[in-house]
Amino acid sequence: MKEISKLLEVRESVRVVDATLRDGGLVNDFYFTDEFAKALYETNVKAGVDYMEMGYRADKEQFDPDKFGPWKFSSDEYIRKIVGDNNTDLKIAIMADVGRCNYKEDIHDKAESPVDMIRVATYLHQLPGAVAMIEDACKKGYETTCNIMAISTAGKEDVSAALDIICQTPISCVYIVDSYGSLYPEQIQRIADLYCNKAAKYGKKVGIHAHDNQKLAFANTIEAVGDEVDYLDGTYNSMGRGAGNCAMELLLGFLKNPKYKERYAFEFVEKYMLPLKESGVVWGYDLQYLVTGLLNQHPRTAIQFTKDERKDYLNFYQEMINLD
Amino acid sequence: MKEISKLLEVRESVRVVDATLRDGGLVNDFYFTDEFAKALYETNVKAGVDYMEMGYRADKEQFDPDKFGPWKFSSDEYIRKIVGDNNTDLKIAIMADVGRCNYKEDIHDKAESPVDMIRVATYLHQLPGAVAMIEDACKKGYETTCNIMAISTAGKEDVSAALDIICQTPISCVYIVDSYGSLYPEQIQRIADLYCNKAAKYGKKVGIHAHDNQKLAFANTIEAVGDEVDYLDGTYNSMGRGAGNCAMELLLGFLKNPKYKERYAFEFVEKYMLPLKESGVVWGYDLQYLVTGLLNQHPRTAIQFTKDERKDYLNFYQEMINLD
Repeated sequence: MKEISKLLEVRESVRVVDATLRDGGLVNDFYFTDEFAKALYETNVKAGVDYMEMGYRADKEQFDPDKFGPWKFSSDEYIRKIVGDNNTDLKIAIMADVGRCNYKEDIHDKAESPVDMIRVATYLHQLPGAVAMIEDACKKGYETTCNIMAISTAGKEDVSAALDIICQTPISCVYIVDSYGSLYPEQIQRIADLYCNKAAKYGKKVGIHAHDNQKLAFANTIEAVGDEVDYLDGTYNSMGRGAGNCAMELLLGFLKNPKYKERYAFEFVEKYMLPLKESGVVWGYDLQYLVTGLLNQHPRTAIQFTKDERKDYLNFYQEMINLD
Repeated sequence: MKEISKLLEVRESVRVVDATLRDGGLVNDFYFTDEFAKALYETNVKAGVDYMEMGYRADKEQFDPDKFGPWKFSSDEYIRKIVGDNNTDLKIAIMADVGRCNYKEDIHDKAESPVDMIRVATYLHQLPGAVAMIEDACKKGYETTCNIMAISTAGKEDVSAALDIICQTPISCVYIVDSYGSLYPEQIQRIADLYCNKAAKYGKKVGIHAHDNQKLAFANTIEAVGDEVDYLDGTYNSMGRGAGNCAMELLLGFLKNPKYKERYAFEFVEKYMLPLKESGVVWGYDLQYLVTGLLNQHPRTAIQFTKDERKDYLNFYQEMINLD
């Protein structure tokens, strides 16, 4: 049983990361207006959020800039357009996927960039690529974290070995990522135990990035906080791929550190997230995501179901169950 | 840490209770069509649900039958219209509120009724009334359970004393009720520990009825299952007062007993719950419910906010925070 003090106290090592422009961008191809991005930035500053992830730095050779909004590529120049010199306590992060980021050319020295942190996202089979990117980013002066994706389909031995490799790089934090939204809090506790033990051995922090396929993104995140996980991803109104992520407004409400001010989250959701939903951008918990979560599968079939505006949940369930 | 076997095994003592007609009825004044009620009944039978709560048995002297649908009063005759002789494994329950049910006259002997279980709902200050109702229902031949409401605003000593009183009646099960949707899983674990210890002393079971104000109804329910709580309330598509309840489709997906078949939940949500939502009946997680949940308050102000079709979440938050 967790100590009751954990519900009431401040843990100074906690860091809240807003991933709205990045994970949210996956559902609108990163077409956020500058006004939206600026209001989000100002909200994060006022709400006491620690990091704001301003999209991906994807390779323009691989992705056509005419087919995506600015936050797919998140150039230093574009970020500066929003944050200026960022003379605030909010730190700026971007995500760089192994194999999809031309990091040697597109990630410049920290001294020339408004970015503070590079989040390297990797699958288990790409670990050497992740290590190279992490070392490059650290050498250029950035705080660097690593998201190992899709661990719910991996064996514990593989994850354990991966943690040993990643924790020997100069990262500050390694993330538990529930890519498919398939994990229950009991499993998060077990996984957090593995991650935190490994991380402690190498002097690293642990983070969590959860998905809401089973309406457990917030529950899994606060389970993880209670298990000593420090870096917590959230998005306003849960905006994110498929079922979305841990809602920032829930997370700020839960954390007891007075620097976190959920009122600004309420304001931002009211003024920006609802109009975005009303404009036709679709995300959030629905039964097709529950199905892929239950079955521990990538949500791509459920995303297609959503795009096709299908509502025949039972057929979808049967299709998924009957796959060979 | 919970044993990993708890995620994979069957616990035969678990009972799933469908509360859609009852808690869901609170948002449409119990105006479900007979077709809906019948399809719900058939779904529960096929899905392996153990109990179906068919509304309240409210006192017609206190509530005008012209202003409510049939499931506010749930007469034996009306229930029979839907379930006939109910020659199935599904048991029928109704809820009876202390002070709002003329139980001496309106609850007949079990031998004359299609009802199997009476769920007595009480506030702490009504305990003697609850005891009288429980004794009456048990004497008439019913399985009887007790929901002690709004415990999140009560002291542990009061709850503990109430459990001693209630567990000395002939009930089968006492419920943890998170009326305001304010409790986190860590707190549920602590409360379940108290309830289960008391209940074990008297040979009783424990149940949970959760609300989704902080999107934790399912998370709190599965936390409770892991803590040895046996009776689990759910509603299809989370239909219930305010933010709603633990979603039946999530719960059946989680439970590993092969008798629970979530496919029928998907089918029912598709065919009946979505059209109900589209017809304008409103329920489910939204920020006004998060506010009352966070503040551990009755959701009535949030329900009014919803009825007024307000979307000024920040104003609402300020109003609630600034109450003296």
